[in-house]
Amino acid sequence: MDRYEEIRKSIINFRDERDWKQFHNPKDIAISLNIEAGELLECFQWKSNHDIEEILKSSKRESIEDEIADVANYLILLCNELDVNLFDVVERKIEKNKVKYPVDKFKGSSKKYNE
Amino acid sequence: MDRYEEIRKSIINFRDERDWKQFHNPKDIAISLNIEAGELLECFQWKSNHDIEEILKSSKRESIEDEIADVANYLILLCNELDVNLFDVVERKIEKNKVKYPVDKFKGSSKKYNE
Amino acid sequence: MDRYEEIRKSIINFRDERDWKQFHNPKDIAISLNIEAGELLECFQWKSNHDIEEILKSSKRESIEDEIADVANYLILLCNELDVNLFDVVERKIEKNKVKYPVDKFKGSSKKYNE
Amino acid sequence: MDRYEEIRKSIINFRDERDWKQFHNPKDIAISLNIEAGELLECFQWKSNHDIEEILKSSKRESIEDEIADVANYLILLCNELDVNLFDVVERKIEKNKVKYPVDKFKGSSKKYNE
Repeated sequence: MDRYEEIRKSIINFRDERDWKQFHNPKDIAISLNIEAGELLECFQWKSNHDIEEILKSSKRESIEDEIADVANYLILLCNELDVNLFDVVERKIEKNKVKYPVDKFKGSSKKYNE
Repeated sequence: MDRYEEIRKSIINFRDERDWKQFHNPKDIAISLNIEAGELLECFQWKSNHDIEEILKSSKRESIEDEIADVANYLILLCNELDVNLFDVVERKIEKNKVKYPVDKFKGSSKKYNE
Repeated sequence: MDRYEEIRKSIINFRDERDWKQFHNPKDIAISLNIEAGELLECFQWKSNHDIEEILKSSKRESIEDEIADVANYLILLCNELDVNLFDVVERKIEKNKVKYPVDKFKGSSKKYNE
Repeated sequence: MDRYEEIRKSIINFRDERDWKQFHNPKDIAISLNIEAGELLECFQWKSNHDIEEILKSSKRESIEDEIADVANYLILLCNELDVNLFDVVERKIEKNKVKYPVDKFKGSSKKYNE
């Protein structure tokens, strides 16, 4: 069993032990993903890139890692709920992005495809 | 090479071909993660759980999967930038959550640990 | 002086007493607005509409009002920073939305204009 | 009638003409506020403070103002739905923040009250 599958099972097991499946509809999981993404962003609020480098070398690093884990947790739960293979959809999206952002047009540019 | 590592390399390769590393500081990646999480949530805006089930069976399913992929893309980029092993931090967080949310106190409850 | 202007001045005064203008660039204020919007949404996480009605009648109501205030605070700060008249832009947007969402096409529908 | 009240009535009128009250429960409005806050943040994604100054002087300024208006729109709708006086709760929160962030402790610092 690969690592992702192992972790997905741990997350589902954690949930089922607490009888939380009843709360885990796709909409509420997507809400939770947004809340956790906001908490992750909060780690960088008002900070310069230099400040952030310092934080990452300090004891606060673990709290940032924990916020990353919370985002991942809900992403995995959402994929589980929607019966989505996370790796398959990411690979497909990379292929789409190659078409959307051709190298010769977007090299070195932060513009969006529709700008 | 496992699937995650393969995809991480595809994402970094996609980025480097476009010379986008210069934009990918942790703060802007976390911003992007929030924006994509919002776009994912938008798929469920104003929709009931029943509506969402119908959408998931329709041709709109792929656009939801694409938003999931976009969130995953930035999560993987952030881990890459911060030199974080995503699976390690998720596993550690599950262990922390077991302490934070003991089964006997939280079974069947949507309360937060500090409520 | 109207109420909005009075409050805007209180917010700026609060900020200047703490010498926080140095942090208040538009990007970080927009980040803060997102974080606070996430905290407001957290009040409704996992809750049904019925649960929310109960919460609004309970002592937790004030914490929801405080999150609303936090969102408003950053919205007012952003308008101040960008020299935007909030009421003017809202009125202009209502007019645009009337064109984007004509009554005869969108009455009773939660569809988006591009759906 | 003051400007805020005038605009609140325009927003409610816009909504009622389209028979959209049925969708406007507090949770979905808070979701919408998050989505719009994300779209506002997207205007600043990958941009430096200098880039943003340039954007604000360009024809793209109006699209930023429109996103601000969208956030305000849902904030006003939420206050309307929860029967909250926006100005009252902001004023109360400023008073709370004065206690939470005493000038002598937080002057010139971007730390949070619990840091």
